Amino acid sequence: MKIKILTLFPNMFMQEIGESIIKRAIDNKVVEIEIIDFRKYSKDKSHHVDDTPCGGGAGMVLKCDILDEAINDNKGNNTHIILTTPQGRMYNQKIAEELSQKEELMIICGHYEGFDERIRSFVDDEISIGDFVLTGGELAACVILDSVVRLIDNVINKNSKDDDSFSNGLLEYPQYTRPVEYKGMMVPDVLLSGNHKNIREYRLKESLRKTLERRPDLLEKRILTDEESKYLKEIKEENKK
Amino acid sequence: MKIKILTLFPNMFMQEIGESIIKRAIDNKVVEIEIIDFRKYSKDKSHHVDDTPCGGGAGMVLKCDILDEAINDNKGNNTHIILTTPQGRMYNQKIAEELSQKEELMIICGHYEGFDERIRSFVDDEISIGDFVLTGGELAACVILDSVVRLIDNVINKNSKDDDSFSNGLLEYPQYTRPVEYKGMMVPDVLLSGNHKNIREYRLKESLRKTLERRPDLLEKRILTDEESKYLKEIKEENKK
Repeated sequence: MKIKILTLFPNMFMQEIGESIIKRAIDNKVVEIEIIDFRKYSKDKSHHVDDTPCGGGAGMVLKCDILDEAINDNKGNNTHIILTTPQGRMYNQKIAEELSQKEELMIICGHYEGFDERIRSFVDDEISIGDFVLTGGELAACVILDSVVRLIDNVINKNSKDDDSFSNGLLEYPQYTRPVEYKGMMVPDVLLSGNHKNIREYRLKESLRKTLERRPDLLEKRILTDEESKYLKEIKEENKK
Repeated sequence: MKIKILTLFPNMFMQEIGESIIKRAIDNKVVEIEIIDFRKYSKDKSHHVDDTPCGGGAGMVLKCDILDEAINDNKGNNTHIILTTPQGRMYNQKIAEELSQKEELMIICGHYEGFDERIRSFVDDEISIGDFVLTGGELAACVILDSVVRLIDNVINKNSKDDDSFSNGLLEYPQYTRPVEYKGMMVPDVLLSGNHKNIREYRLKESLRKTLERRPDLLEKRILTDEESKYLKEIKEENKK
């Protein structure tokens, strides 16, 4: 897969790429990442990429002509072009999976107070990573990059991917490691029992319990197996007591 | 405000801090940020911070004793301690505002496949930035850092803060800047009219239209003013045609 990122702050990506599994993915030639500073498409002497908003108001607005040229100069035949914006569709693991299947992605980082509305017509997709305001789209692009690259085949261990929160529609079960006792808090006995059947059941049940407690909306979206329905019923009865 | 970040990948924050408005906030002494590599709290020779999960399974689990010590060694009297985890409460602008009022924050970055469940008992708050899986909590911490610091008084221009998406519960109105025409796409006449009353009305109406179209859930959560209700009715009637 090829991922191109259009940004005014190319350095922000270097660390993200350098430290993480993304570096490994690049080294293994699973993914190719290109960071493009689109300031170079500005035609004026001071390399401005923004201008004051038509109709007045605070802040500066990214110009559509510069971004159009930057996009056209860098897109391939099968590039899925994404704009990061608080107005986009809400990013989630399903979208990450969808994007990880693409041949080539281009992620455009919005920055400043806003961008010219006409830029929306140049892109295939608008993505928001959440209902909060960031100083720029760079962090959103990093989030997309990180979550997508780790899903590409061979980047991380398949077992650990399948255990992720959300990957099966439930929150992850509680994990423990040594020491067995810490300040009076114990690792649950079942996890030390060596009984794999019981451990599996405990984990599924606790995963359901967490999800019910913290994110009941995830359960509503999900078709439960018979085993899951049975545990969920047990948990609800335990909660009544 | 003081923000401490506990991480195993301290370098990941350098770029984020160096490039952004966070740098300006630090220079202006509005915020003090300390990045702490909690690996130094490991007692064994190879500086391990994780161990295999009790009960078996893929991946490594962050140890609770090391993190407990790291927290205790760095927390002050009024530190609000946050753990980044997909199981936390869903981050949004309201939480960003809440956190921006705190005296001191500590953000703990989860990493690896998971962390010992007992770590939850050491923290005040668990935050998720969204329903997607990241390789670590560092990006989540960056998101919290960025969104909180920009809300602290004097970090950015108040007008531009008030215009943000979500800050008034609506998506932002469309912005335009020169050129007035680009490939047949025009800046709306009203924005070039110089009539401030009309511009204000246009923007409010378009802000409502976008929100209705893309995020109707935001409208449900909001008490509308009389003017907003009037425009929303108009928009719905226009949509029927």
